[in-house]
Amino acid sequence: MEKKIITISREFGSGGRSIGREVARILGFDFYDKELIEKVAQESGFDKKYIEDHGEDAPSKSLFAYAFIGRDQNGMSISDYIWQAQRKIILELAEKGNCVIVGRCSDYILRDRKDCLHVFIHADKEKRAERIVKLYGETDKMPKKRLDEKDKKRKVNYRYYTDRQWGASQNYHISLDSSEFGICKCVEIIVQLVKESRK
Amino acid sequence: MEKKIITISREFGSGGRSIGREVARILGFDFYDKELIEKVAQESGFDKKYIEDHGEDAPSKSLFAYAFIGRDQNGMSISDYIWQAQRKIILELAEKGNCVIVGRCSDYILRDRKDCLHVFIHADKEKRAERIVKLYGETDKMPKKRLDEKDKKRKVNYRYYTDRQWGASQNYHISLDSSEFGICKCVEIIVQLVKESRK
Repeated sequence: MEKKIITISREFGSGGRSIGREVARILGFDFYDKELIEKVAQESGFDKKYIEDHGEDAPSKSLFAYAFIGRDQNGMSISDYIWQAQRKIILELAEKGNCVIVGRCSDYILRDRKDCLHVFIHADKEKRAERIVKLYGETDKMPKKRLDEKDKKRKVNYRYYTDRQWGASQNYHISLDSSEFGICKCVEIIVQLVKESRK
Repeated sequence: MEKKIITISREFGSGGRSIGREVARILGFDFYDKELIEKVAQESGFDKKYIEDHGEDAPSKSLFAYAFIGRDQNGMSISDYIWQAQRKIILELAEKGNCVIVGRCSDYILRDRKDCLHVFIHADKEKRAERIVKLYGETDKMPKKRLDEKDKKRKVNYRYYTDRQWGASQNYHISLDSSEFGICKCVEIIVQLVKESRK
């Protein structure tokens, strides 16, 4: 079946976002990454920065927020509201089709659609550490510690909302090691699979 | 770096073995599946059938054997002996190069070699159930139960000897859903990656 939606899940620093952007450009698809965050902000009323920082984090990170607003009468936390808004928007975007969506459990949210290609991008830690320093600059924290923390948060968030294992091959149609093949080759493979799905 | 060894890990019924065989044929590589079992039998002195049935199983399945022989003075079980023999042979085969090795934790055993391409093949349960009935015939057990049991054993065996998660994308350079792309396309992608590694 023709693939009209590509979801890209990725390890932090693996280049998954760049791969998604390039795939979208070549195929003429819409690309949702920061754009998704803006839509979620509009939908949920929460601050963009907060969504960007915590929308893929472990729900426990919202404890600070609980102290101020607690859970509402439906027992929902801030994380739950963001999850709901993200889910609604991802389902709407999928209806429009011809798009690449990065992260935010989109592989799980769209798991029943046959017109989706679900991709996971990972890379070895050395290369990812180099990449995040190059892209986001240095901080007080060691790059490998930053990677571990970010990956752990994504893993716990994914597990909490999907009850699946983040990064398990079985969740994706294809998983690629970008440090082995390079960004360009990963893009090429994905584009080719989408084009061949049209035949 | 040129890839001279391909390891294929696979879900039961995903066609991973057929993919490996075809990749080996096209590239002119040796193919080790049943052949590996024969070598392990020679090395370990255990029966071929036993190794075939239990060499990728959970160590706990050897309890029956423990009842007869127990652990030796080194505290090693039958599973441990088979593991050791498999490991030794896989390392020897890798030294010779130009081969495809199916299963038996070969991705883990050869994880430090740069000339290996590590592949994981999976497929949806419906397709796998159809495939095992077609290939191995029906039994008293429902096909999906057979799949669950076999996958669980491989998972526990892998975890026990490698301390890694079986099927986690990060263990492999590429993971492919053969029910999505078909056996031929998986073969094509793998062959292309090996050929390109020579440039």
